[in-house]
Amino acid sequence: MSVGAVPRTIEWIGGLDGHVVMIDQTRLPAELVMLECRDVQTMWNAIKRLSVRGAPAIGIAAAMGAVLGVRDYDGLDRDGFLKKFDEVCDYLASSRPTAVNLRWALDRLRRRAQSTPGNDMTTTRRALLDEAKSIRDEDVTMCRAIGRFGEPLIKPGCGVLTHCNAGGLATACWGTALAPLYAAHALGRSFRVFPGETRPLLQGSRLTAWELQQAGIGVTLLCDSMVGSLLKSGRVDLVITGADRITANGDTANKIGTYAIAVLARAHEIPFYVAAPSSTFDLATPDGTGIPIEEREPDEIRRGFGPLTAPPNVDCYCPAFDVTPAAFIRGIITERGIVEPVTAARIASTLGA
Amino acid sequence: MSVGAVPRTIEWIGGLDGHVVMIDQTRLPAELVMLECRDVQTMWNAIKRLSVRGAPAIGIAAAMGAVLGVRDYDGLDRDGFLKKFDEVCDYLASSRPTAVNLRWALDRLRRRAQSTPGNDMTTTRRALLDEAKSIRDEDVTMCRAIGRFGEPLIKPGCGVLTHCNAGGLATACWGTALAPLYAAHALGRSFRVFPGETRPLLQGSRLTAWELQQAGIGVTLLCDSMVGSLLKSGRVDLVITGADRITANGDTANKIGTYAIAVLARAHEIPFYVAAPSSTFDLATPDGTGIPIEEREPDEIRRGFGPLTAPPNVDCYCPAFDVTPAAFIRGIITERGIVEPVTAARIASTLGA
Repeated sequence: MSVGAVPRTIEWIGGLDGHVVMIDQTRLPAELVMLECRDVQTMWNAIKRLSVRGAPAIGIAAAMGAVLGVRDYDGLDRDGFLKKFDEVCDYLASSRPTAVNLRWALDRLRRRAQSTPGNDMTTTRRALLDEAKSIRDEDVTMCRAIGRFGEPLIKPGCGVLTHCNAGGLATACWGTALAPLYAAHALGRSFRVFPGETRPLLQGSRLTAWELQQAGIGVTLLCDSMVGSLLKSGRVDLVITGADRITANGDTANKIGTYAIAVLARAHEIPFYVAAPSSTFDLATPDGTGIPIEEREPDEIRRGFGPLTAPPNVDCYCPAFDVTPAAFIRGIITERGIVEPVTAARIASTLGA
Repeated sequence: MSVGAVPRTIEWIGGLDGHVVMIDQTRLPAELVMLECRDVQTMWNAIKRLSVRGAPAIGIAAAMGAVLGVRDYDGLDRDGFLKKFDEVCDYLASSRPTAVNLRWALDRLRRRAQSTPGNDMTTTRRALLDEAKSIRDEDVTMCRAIGRFGEPLIKPGCGVLTHCNAGGLATACWGTALAPLYAAHALGRSFRVFPGETRPLLQGSRLTAWELQQAGIGVTLLCDSMVGSLLKSGRVDLVITGADRITANGDTANKIGTYAIAVLARAHEIPFYVAAPSSTFDLATPDGTGIPIEEREPDEIRRGFGPLTAPPNVDCYCPAFDVTPAAFIRGIITERGIVEPVTAARIASTLGA
């Protein structure tokens, strides 16, 4: 099932000695440029500089990057190969410290490496590539399921606010927060999406507005400073955002700005939903106070659009994420159903934990 | 009284045949360039291209520009001079058609020209220069009074969030929302100011961060999307913003984003203050529903600072202002005292209406 004209976010091209091709998301929306990754350093940089971003896409990228990282080590013995593979995974994990999907995908590959028997490292490497491709295929299936569960929330003629990009570009192709929208659109339903531009990196304007427009969905873009005014205007019936990490009680870390939107949504009695796969849940962490928040480079604020727009050395507050308490979230749309109300017990039962 | 190292926004240099020097605000924060205006065309351009902005500063610029415009007409008779002066004022008024202060200042000079007796046009011209300088001096006095009333709110070690630029650069030199901060700083008090960058036009990062830094006040800049996270962090004790229009009941129109900050401040039990001169009150309008909201050009969002950061033709929601209901405002700091609580009766009594 195709999603309008949106190209695939990330794909493995060729066989065991192939490479990764992905959309360089730093170049959107001005141009659609595909980035080739043939070695792990290029992949580390691509993840670090957000050429690929969004929790599921990062997981897929890291998994494929890990396979690239051991391309030249078939000659090692099993112990040497596994040691090398561990180093490659540790290296990739260092690119985005808060991204739980990245470590989840890498741990899955580590287990596959450990559990693949025999001393033929070409066979092990092939198993790792299969595993990376499985992560991608499962992502497509997962997004489609989120779309199916969330689609009934999108009523004809409604307005939906979203933030950042939890769309096709954040996954292999369907997205999480946008999956219900693509599913409703595929059913011929008409509605309007309001993406906040999402400073500092403008994923909302560069990516979400772009991919929704490519798919033929009505889009009205706004600055983050305009969310309060928009919600007050009555044009928004529903908020759906993605998530970077959800703790056992439902507290949700997501792109900076999400928490403020949740507070504003509550003040205007507009339901606030999170859409995320079960892999985003971190049940070992009881609540949001345990989530480390990455600080980003101040120049993302000071030179966000190229030219200097602030004093060159001014101190900046630049967290990458914030945490929205579970109490602000009406429901969490997962590939296993909607967690609603958001409680530790409901999360555990929906996830089958 | 000097404000740290902040240069005066706009000044008349020399005597009757002098000229105007002002900060070219379009060059900030990259460089401090002073713009000399020796004729009315240069002033018209400076106002038009936002080299000078902020309602009070525009009024002063227009008044001084009108004086420049009749420099060479002392040889005319009274009728000829007054006709010429009217043309000059009409021309300047056309630079920013919606700026109320601009027309207010020009009308004040027209009245002064009309009411100055005698046929010596050098004397009339001197009266006009005195009037223009009075507008400037009254602005300084007014800002200083706002500073004096607001200063006790700025406790040692506190954090203050502000939005947009209601600072010295918007006035002759002290500002409105920033006046209490400059006053507290002059008393040796230490505190930190958090300006939101204020998309789409980034007055917070370009202007407010710059002028506070010049004055030696601690500044931490943030994106508008980070306000919720910052308020939750406990680092902000107080919010102060300016106002574009305040209705009889205290509802306040200000730069887009102000309303969301007020909602977030209330959710975190942080007091939200507005600082504005009595001339900002529009007592003929009962409440905020009567305030028209200007829509700005979508390219302010799509091409905020040069490069395209959104699909080129995407629809945008781009209001210039929003309205914060009086119920969200702890107090309004005016040059006649603080209106607190914000009620129609308190406003009327503070303004002496």
